Amino acid sequence: MKSILLLPLLASFAIAQTNYIHYVKPLTGTQRMGHTYPGATAPFGMVQLSPDTDTLMYEKNGKYQKEVYQYCAGYQYEDRTIVGFSHTHFSGTGHSDLGDFLIMPTTGKLQLNPGTAEHPESGYRSLYAHVNEIAEPAYYKVKLDDHDILAELTATTRVGFHQYTFPKSDSAHIILDLMHGIYNYDGKNVWTFVRVENDTLVTGYRQTSGWGRTRTLYFAMAFSKPFTSYGHAKYDTSVYRGFWRKFDERKNFPEMAGRNIRAYFDFNTNENEQIKIKFALSPVSTEGALKNLLAEIPDWDFERVKSESQKQWNEELGKVSVTMLSQKDMETFYTSLYHTFLGPTLYMDVDGRYKGIDQNIHTADGFTNYSTFSLWDTYRALHPLFNILQPNRNGDMIRSMLAHYDQSVHKMLPVWSHHANENWCMIGYHSVSVIADAFVKGNLSFDAVKALAACVQTARTKYYDGLEYYMSMGYVPEDKNSSSVSKTLEYAYDDWAIAQMAKKLGNESIYNEFTNRSQNFVNVFDTKIGFARPKLSDGTWRADFNTLSTHGQGFIEGNSWNYSLHVPHDVPEMIALIGGRKKFTAYLDSLFMMHLPDEFFAETEDITREGIIGNYVHGNEPSHHVPYLYNWTDQPWKTQERVRQILKLKYSNTPDGLSGNDDCGQMSAWYIFSALGFYPVAPGSEQYSIGSPLVKTASIKLENGKTITIEVKNQSEKNVYVQKILLNGKEWKNNYFLHSDLMNGADIVFEMGEKRKR
Amino acid sequence: MKSILLLPLLASFAIAQTNYIHYVKPLTGTQRMGHTYPGATAPFGMVQLSPDTDTLMYEKNGKYQKEVYQYCAGYQYEDRTIVGFSHTHFSGTGHSDLGDFLIMPTTGKLQLNPGTAEHPESGYRSLYAHVNEIAEPAYYKVKLDDHDILAELTATTRVGFHQYTFPKSDSAHIILDLMHGIYNYDGKNVWTFVRVENDTLVTGYRQTSGWGRTRTLYFAMAFSKPFTSYGHAKYDTSVYRGFWRKFDERKNFPEMAGRNIRAYFDFNTNENEQIKIKFALSPVSTEGALKNLLAEIPDWDFERVKSESQKQWNEELGKVSVTMLSQKDMETFYTSLYHTFLGPTLYMDVDGRYKGIDQNIHTADGFTNYSTFSLWDTYRALHPLFNILQPNRNGDMIRSMLAHYDQSVHKMLPVWSHHANENWCMIGYHSVSVIADAFVKGNLSFDAVKALAACVQTARTKYYDGLEYYMSMGYVPEDKNSSSVSKTLEYAYDDWAIAQMAKKLGNESIYNEFTNRSQNFVNVFDTKIGFARPKLSDGTWRADFNTLSTHGQGFIEGNSWNYSLHVPHDVPEMIALIGGRKKFTAYLDSLFMMHLPDEFFAETEDITREGIIGNYVHGNEPSHHVPYLYNWTDQPWKTQERVRQILKLKYSNTPDGLSGNDDCGQMSAWYIFSALGFYPVAPGSEQYSIGSPLVKTASIKLENGKTITIEVKNQSEKNVYVQKILLNGKEWKNNYFLHSDLMNGADIVFEMGEKRKR
Repeated sequence: MKSILLLPLLASFAIAQTNYIHYVKPLTGTQRMGHTYPGATAPFGMVQLSPDTDTLMYEKNGKYQKEVYQYCAGYQYEDRTIVGFSHTHFSGTGHSDLGDFLIMPTTGKLQLNPGTAEHPESGYRSLYAHVNEIAEPAYYKVKLDDHDILAELTATTRVGFHQYTFPKSDSAHIILDLMHGIYNYDGKNVWTFVRVENDTLVTGYRQTSGWGRTRTLYFAMAFSKPFTSYGHAKYDTSVYRGFWRKFDERKNFPEMAGRNIRAYFDFNTNENEQIKIKFALSPVSTEGALKNLLAEIPDWDFERVKSESQKQWNEELGKVSVTMLSQKDMETFYTSLYHTFLGPTLYMDVDGRYKGIDQNIHTADGFTNYSTFSLWDTYRALHPLFNILQPNRNGDMIRSMLAHYDQSVHKMLPVWSHHANENWCMIGYHSVSVIADAFVKGNLSFDAVKALAACVQTARTKYYDGLEYYMSMGYVPEDKNSSSVSKTLEYAYDDWAIAQMAKKLGNESIYNEFTNRSQNFVNVFDTKIGFARPKLSDGTWRADFNTLSTHGQGFIEGNSWNYSLHVPHDVPEMIALIGGRKKFTAYLDSLFMMHLPDEFFAETEDITREGIIGNYVHGNEPSHHVPYLYNWTDQPWKTQERVRQILKLKYSNTPDGLSGNDDCGQMSAWYIFSALGFYPVAPGSEQYSIGSPLVKTASIKLENGKTITIEVKNQSEKNVYVQKILLNGKEWKNNYFLHSDLMNGADIVFEMGEKRKR
Repeated sequence: MKSILLLPLLASFAIAQTNYIHYVKPLTGTQRMGHTYPGATAPFGMVQLSPDTDTLMYEKNGKYQKEVYQYCAGYQYEDRTIVGFSHTHFSGTGHSDLGDFLIMPTTGKLQLNPGTAEHPESGYRSLYAHVNEIAEPAYYKVKLDDHDILAELTATTRVGFHQYTFPKSDSAHIILDLMHGIYNYDGKNVWTFVRVENDTLVTGYRQTSGWGRTRTLYFAMAFSKPFTSYGHAKYDTSVYRGFWRKFDERKNFPEMAGRNIRAYFDFNTNENEQIKIKFALSPVSTEGALKNLLAEIPDWDFERVKSESQKQWNEELGKVSVTMLSQKDMETFYTSLYHTFLGPTLYMDVDGRYKGIDQNIHTADGFTNYSTFSLWDTYRALHPLFNILQPNRNGDMIRSMLAHYDQSVHKMLPVWSHHANENWCMIGYHSVSVIADAFVKGNLSFDAVKALAACVQTARTKYYDGLEYYMSMGYVPEDKNSSSVSKTLEYAYDDWAIAQMAKKLGNESIYNEFTNRSQNFVNVFDTKIGFARPKLSDGTWRADFNTLSTHGQGFIEGNSWNYSLHVPHDVPEMIALIGGRKKFTAYLDSLFMMHLPDEFFAETEDITREGIIGNYVHGNEPSHHVPYLYNWTDQPWKTQERVRQILKLKYSNTPDGLSGNDDCGQMSAWYIFSALGFYPVAPGSEQYSIGSPLVKTASIKLENGKTITIEVKNQSEKNVYVQKILLNGKEWKNNYFLHSDLMNGADIVFEMGEKRKR
């Protein structure tokens, strides 16, 4: 008896000992369109300290440079040179910003320009080789060949920690390039400021315009060894001819300011001498950055910091303990899980202060403030995943969104916000989905009545993106506002989410208003052709219409074939509009099997050919729920088939392992859900649509202390079809689970087979 | 008995009732070189709300525009048009900045460009006439002819209050020009930000480079009447091609940002309808500005605010109650006193928060934080005057300077600082004089030990302006650092001031070190010619030398004739170096009587011909103590003569009444001291050198409750010579008073006559 009782304890002990981080390959997605970064960061950390491999400008001769798109996260795997290591990066975005505070260690003649990829010797950048590169959670290491320097990076939440091992040199330098940035353009730098507080401490800030129109980030930078001299160069065209003639500010003058500055710090080094840098960020002030620095890394023990940050990662990743069919699958799974825990990123000082969207300094009262809300992407699966794995953090994210709302002059929840800025990227008002989903799923950590009011107010902002037409006419007319069908469909879904929240709160009038609005998707369905289609303000359908084309057709990041399926909240009605269940099944079949001609593929954004199956575009988000729609037909096994196909074909553990932008974790969240066997087709509903699990076993530790265990019997590459499901020992006939079925702890058994069954 | 006892009470009651503000003519100094502004401000107020009459740029085609110099305070009396009313102005400076947040009310077609002085109809500016203009302390009124609008302005410490009386119009506008500024140049605006919080409240900020290299000022602007619509135009060349296409941000979009923005607000008005604006500033945030607004002006009662601010002025001006020979003298006196109470200006929010020179936000703990320290000017007479009239404020100013020191990365006290910036203007480190003077005169409101350390640290900053040479060689060599003689002389004086403070604190080593340094003036005196003269680093005198020339001769704002007299702390040794008392007397006589040829006059800066007497340059500061130097000869009556001459010739109550830049009150402080009969030749000493009073009587109310009364018997235009002095009833034979003679209350009687006596 005794030994049997001990078994579960031992098992859980064994799980706690698993080193999950060894399964994580941060280089995954750094090739082609993944737009992930390989550098060091803590879970949801404010610092993302990562190598940048090029410095392309957003504009050249006043024109958008397409090439810059590759550098959304600063790093492209195929590049041969590293420009340096900057402290902020988005993970997986399709537009970009950040890249703040690039540090580069060099030896030899001081060069303050980065040089070119073709001629790295013409600047401070360096050749490197992947064979000398290691990327782990919270740790990155690379040899900088041109300077014979070993670079190692780790990070706590607010502090990047650099460790550079130098050769013997009487001309060693650390460059701090304040001109560097991601998606830079001429004039993006608004102002930069540097104070050399003493010979081991430097503070300052960088203020930029761009995607974040009014963005300032502060820093404090401590050196492990005093520099012997320092200086800077200024590249401004317009400098005030004032009294600065009094000094030669270029050399050893402790206060530098201007639009375009590069600073440097000189050292003598012995063979293998390490110079370490702690680089803290703050959204508030240099004082805040210094506080963060002292609070998070009081010493110079790089190994300790690395080990503690990796331990933090291990704890986060250990929330889901899985076994799978192969090492490759394990690595793909934990790399995906890693990607889902990169953001939204914390955005406040250790004392709780942060900059609000009103540009004033606020204190997060009783919550952790987060930023970087790529909501058009992440409302679909990332935030739903958080409702299982990170409900506390998701509650704080919602409180951050509500603070944004309070501070917003528009009185709107965030659309796509980062670093105290609303960048208005993409469409819809999907904050409401995130909030409603959390509330419907029992997250009570925020003021739901206030949150509902914020959702309603946001959804009534007439001047926002065609909403006035949508509210008065029931749809967005394409002749008044572009991407009108996508907008109408997404507004309708968001409105349904608001209604669900109102319902649970017992607010009948809001429930009725928004339930009515949620039916607006009907208005953009041309039932004669069975497709959603752009409608004009006179009520007629736009004549010029191609269901395969995306651009200028009333859609965004998805053509009518894909977007017509975007009624997650009322699939039966959508099926009716398309022409009934049979036609609908054929529609789905066609979608996955047709060939998307090159001319139309070229219009899909942000993805490679690997990102599509037929005309189904997995590399973009609008169709992420689509494989699960077979559950509404009499052929749910096709969901199982397609899900497994996508899991295997569209994800991998290699640099090219992401078939499209990871989009702040949304692509990866799809993977985690689907690998576990279910997916939230309509966030705001309690339902998870059942697919085909890829794991063999899974144990999900919930924050409430309960556990969801998943056992997949007869799991194999071939056995993709679900034969039978047991929930807590009883057969489960539904093709969905409810959130509440899971969250008190659940014991799920999938029985798989190679024949279609369910 | 009773009635006799009542008399002094009645007299003081009568004094309290005197309306001193009626003697103040704020237009004085607005013509030619005075560089004062005529607008509305509270005593030492953070807001200086005043009309600007032109918009010249600092640079044109990369070259400094000489004409811009006239607009240091934004207003030139001879101009025919007003561009608008901006909220920050220096008083009397010779270099400039500010002019933040220009407001202009207009009617008719909306025009967002200011237009030109020649063609005001081409823009929003307006013709005006002086006949329709009234300027009083804390009140300014003008008719804007082109728009048929009566403009009235008043101000509290942190809030400007506008009252515009409109004609009937369906096209009335209030323009908020964020591009406007004083000493603007292309690129000076770093960033501007505007939020339309609701239809009566707007907030934002303006961030500039320039004289203040990294300067940001925030505002909150409340309208008495809701605007019907609003918008803005942006004049940026580099605008990010981001997602802002989503909105037409030009019209009714509540968030504006960019480098160059002009906003407008539309109204319909009835005949004589008043639209009022409360415009609050903050150095910290828009939140701070809004707090300031609500705290200082809770209602819309323009008359009440005007009346209370004027009452405040009356109380300040009433600290010195004088009678004089004429109304003109009375007006000149109180206008001068008004000018001395314009600054340094308060620089903090009502909650005590302000931006420090380190760009972080600090809270003034137990003191009021001040900014705008034009110390090269004001150490001479303005701060000494404060030691009598404003010791509390002067203590706070010193605490502000010490806070600056604490926050300075250079660990230096301010040189010329404004709005959280060190602009490094002019030479020396005269903060130490202000501090030592206050301490020697008994001001104990600051930490003297710390203050001394700050003075010493400042005086040892090797990289500052030739100090390394001065410290090692005993003088600044002209071949190493320009204006070397002026610097050597001023450093020596400042060092003496430090020594005086050290002496009183009993710090012998500092006393000895700085007493030694204070003798360095000897090293730049060529005793062969009896003049201070630029010395080279090899110890030889510079050969090319002209005692009348200023430029490139080792001096600044004064030639050798004037600067050789700048040893205020050791006049006897200076006299010896010039060649003995007899030669010295002749030197002074020559100075006042010689003709300064045009070629050399052209080199004196900032003044008109009226600013000189012979070669004595009263329009600049270095010679301000010179008329009093006859007190060290056997002809002190020449001091009396020259002082009276200067008082009458160099000051007046008219727009052209200042013969040079008022320099933040220094010119006017000279007037106040001299009109009262004495002057602080060497601040840091307790001595006031006695001249010839211009008042008939004076009663100076001290903060300690005591009174200094001055009675001038036989005062007349001719009776400029002092015959006899009684101090507290006893004959006073010294040609100086000590500060301590006065501050316990003193009764001074001058007996005047038309014959030289003393």
